[in-house]
Amino acid sequence: MQLIDGFSKLSRAEKLEWLKQQAGLSDSTMKILEDHLHRDRDTQVIYGDLSENTISNFYLPLGLAPNFLINGKLMTLPMVTEESSVVAAASKSAKFWAAHGGFHAGVKGHSKAGQVHFTWSGERDELYRIFERNRERMVQSVRSLTRRMEQRGGGIRSMEIRSTDPGLPGTYNLFVDFNTADAMGANFINSVLEALALQLSQIMTGSGSDGELDVLMSILSNYTPDSIVQCYVEGEVKIFEEMGGGFGPLQFTQRFRKAVDIANHDPYRAVTHNKGIFNGMDAVIMATGNDFRAVEACGHAYASREGSYRSLSSVEWSEEAFRLTLESPLAVGTVGGLTGSHPLAAASLEILGKPSAEELMQVVAAAGLATHFSAVRALITSGIQKGHMKMHLGNILRQLQASKREAEITRHYFSSRVVSYSEVASYLESLRKQNQEE
Amino acid sequence: MQLIDGFSKLSRAEKLEWLKQQAGLSDSTMKILEDHLHRDRDTQVIYGDLSENTISNFYLPLGLAPNFLINGKLMTLPMVTEESSVVAAASKSAKFWAAHGGFHAGVKGHSKAGQVHFTWSGERDELYRIFERNRERMVQSVRSLTRRMEQRGGGIRSMEIRSTDPGLPGTYNLFVDFNTADAMGANFINSVLEALALQLSQIMTGSGSDGELDVLMSILSNYTPDSIVQCYVEGEVKIFEEMGGGFGPLQFTQRFRKAVDIANHDPYRAVTHNKGIFNGMDAVIMATGNDFRAVEACGHAYASREGSYRSLSSVEWSEEAFRLTLESPLAVGTVGGLTGSHPLAAASLEILGKPSAEELMQVVAAAGLATHFSAVRALITSGIQKGHMKMHLGNILRQLQASKREAEITRHYFSSRVVSYSEVASYLESLRKQNQEE
Repeated sequence: MQLIDGFSKLSRAEKLEWLKQQAGLSDSTMKILEDHLHRDRDTQVIYGDLSENTISNFYLPLGLAPNFLINGKLMTLPMVTEESSVVAAASKSAKFWAAHGGFHAGVKGHSKAGQVHFTWSGERDELYRIFERNRERMVQSVRSLTRRMEQRGGGIRSMEIRSTDPGLPGTYNLFVDFNTADAMGANFINSVLEALALQLSQIMTGSGSDGELDVLMSILSNYTPDSIVQCYVEGEVKIFEEMGGGFGPLQFTQRFRKAVDIANHDPYRAVTHNKGIFNGMDAVIMATGNDFRAVEACGHAYASREGSYRSLSSVEWSEEAFRLTLESPLAVGTVGGLTGSHPLAAASLEILGKPSAEELMQVVAAAGLATHFSAVRALITSGIQKGHMKMHLGNILRQLQASKREAEITRHYFSSRVVSYSEVASYLESLRKQNQEE
Repeated sequence: MQLIDGFSKLSRAEKLEWLKQQAGLSDSTMKILEDHLHRDRDTQVIYGDLSENTISNFYLPLGLAPNFLINGKLMTLPMVTEESSVVAAASKSAKFWAAHGGFHAGVKGHSKAGQVHFTWSGERDELYRIFERNRERMVQSVRSLTRRMEQRGGGIRSMEIRSTDPGLPGTYNLFVDFNTADAMGANFINSVLEALALQLSQIMTGSGSDGELDVLMSILSNYTPDSIVQCYVEGEVKIFEEMGGGFGPLQFTQRFRKAVDIANHDPYRAVTHNKGIFNGMDAVIMATGNDFRAVEACGHAYASREGSYRSLSSVEWSEEAFRLTLESPLAVGTVGGLTGSHPLAAASLEILGKPSAEELMQVVAAAGLATHFSAVRALITSGIQKGHMKMHLGNILRQLQASKREAEITRHYFSSRVVSYSEVASYLESLRKQNQEE
């Protein structure tokens, strides 16, 4: 492979030709890249423009999880995930809980933070004093940027100077608390912060102080511990009568509580435990055109806020009642960004009834709690492999166009073996050869 | 909306019809869901089967980042992301570093863990004693499951019993260390663990001890601190001569180091700092059909391992030389799972030259380091908004089919305003109306 200059300026066809030559791509791969383009040229331009150097569209299945009763309202959730069990797990949970009061979700706070990081060589008190004197002037200086957001109910909520003493003496940040209404608001926050940084520099320079202020960077924070969603399901212990695995309802709820306890004491378990929550959350995040990296980074950092990495869910339990609660920070948008420009993100929002950002937070949390409940439920009763394997094997058999009889024999053979595509394919091949010879 | 029974058993057309009715979908949305299906029926079956209740394919742009020099080998990276700046950021970094030695990556360890969580009512010492006596018997009991993996160089590496004392007295886990060769190996690990759990139960029951063992759950861990990838870039300070923002090379490297320092002291910054790493890592993870939730959960938990959430990158700096290192746990596969069955995941692996799992770990790390370097570079020099906004506005203008003159006037107008689709659209509309009237 060779270095290339000006790659982004080549046409898509030229990029592909170069790639084919350099990476030695097969014709069938070239065909795959070609036939995943959208059939409508204008629509394809939209996807091509979402990123740089785009050569094709990556497909992920968009599935539906019906029967989500969230705060008394029945919804069907659009979910985008490559993991085969996620939509099924969400649907199963949703149906169970719809018969028992559904998901109860609420939002605590709606703040997003941004920071202007800087160093100040003067006295700390002087910095704070000059800042306080000019606070209002700073707010006014970015009015042209914030006015529109204020009309939509958002804007700057507060700002203060924070110090990173004693870790990094002389290093501070202007910590700005934003409300971005129904928008994710990244561009808004960053634009305002960069303008505030400039203003702060000018104010300190013109203050007559000997201290020097040096702005390092201005950037929103994806950590939003003041934008929290809580979601719970609850019921009398007796509703868990038929949870499987031969456990009675009391035992089932005790085992569930124990599973959460373990996730609070063992990071090896906690990571997978929380991953099962994000399986559901991310699927809705993706479907609605939101940024799952931001949601993941924020949620996992929150899980470690008390000094060790722990469960995002908790259980309240008595011999009569069981409640499972998920609490996670979450910043999402339902206007702007991809939510409007990506045709399927827009479709997903329509499926959800065009929710506000706060409503979407609640839906995302319900999805996470649903996949979490199903995963733990399977783990503490029959184990997850039984269901996984059955589904996995079924898909493989369908792909290999197995006949009813072939499927039956193959299912029997793999009842005590690890299912994988190649193993099933080679077993089926041998089966077919054998049949031909007979 | 109504509750529905047996939704998964409906045909796709029936599901859509139900959805249309229940969610009141518009005809144009129905058309969107329809025209994102793959034109080839057999290919569409593959995507439909990846998940449950699938009604369409969600498109994400598949882009190329060329000029990645990784351990002396030049590569073009396939990246899947909805975030517009990620591929451009990766490409820019890659090109810069290709001229300065490229990315140096290595893998420390390749272990994946699984756990059988259980309670034991007897003496702790007795449990350990009986386990040690039967260790070999347990390994043998799962040979039918592990044989194939052993042929590929994998299998069980070790196992031990760990206690969660003092947090949860009487709670233990059988901690099993696996090598899954080039596979992600989730199904393999879970199947082996479930079989080991059964065996462990039987052994303890048959041991003659008064203690009772109760298996709670058997499950792989997505936390893989013994499967670590490290990747660094380095150069003399003078190579940063033209990094922009008016900063000299020494200043540039000092500012970079400071940015990493801040991420080590302030979780609000660390979350966004690490998110910029995952922007690149996840784009390759997705393109190759791996599971980004697992990678995210593991990486962020690792970032908090020392008691506070910190940067995954570090800087070594002197007045002469600069080195930026990324260290992250990472578990990926290049065989099995989606890597083979998803046509575009297979294409991505072909673009990468069909790497082993260890090679892919290195590529993923290089992608993360590349987007990270670009993000911090922009932040500490010109700020990120300038580039973002220019790109964002360009895309919107193209979508709205702005003429050259319209684009010029609009660019000027938005040079001091926050860019959003709706703002640009309404400005352009007013511009066009004005022109008609003239």
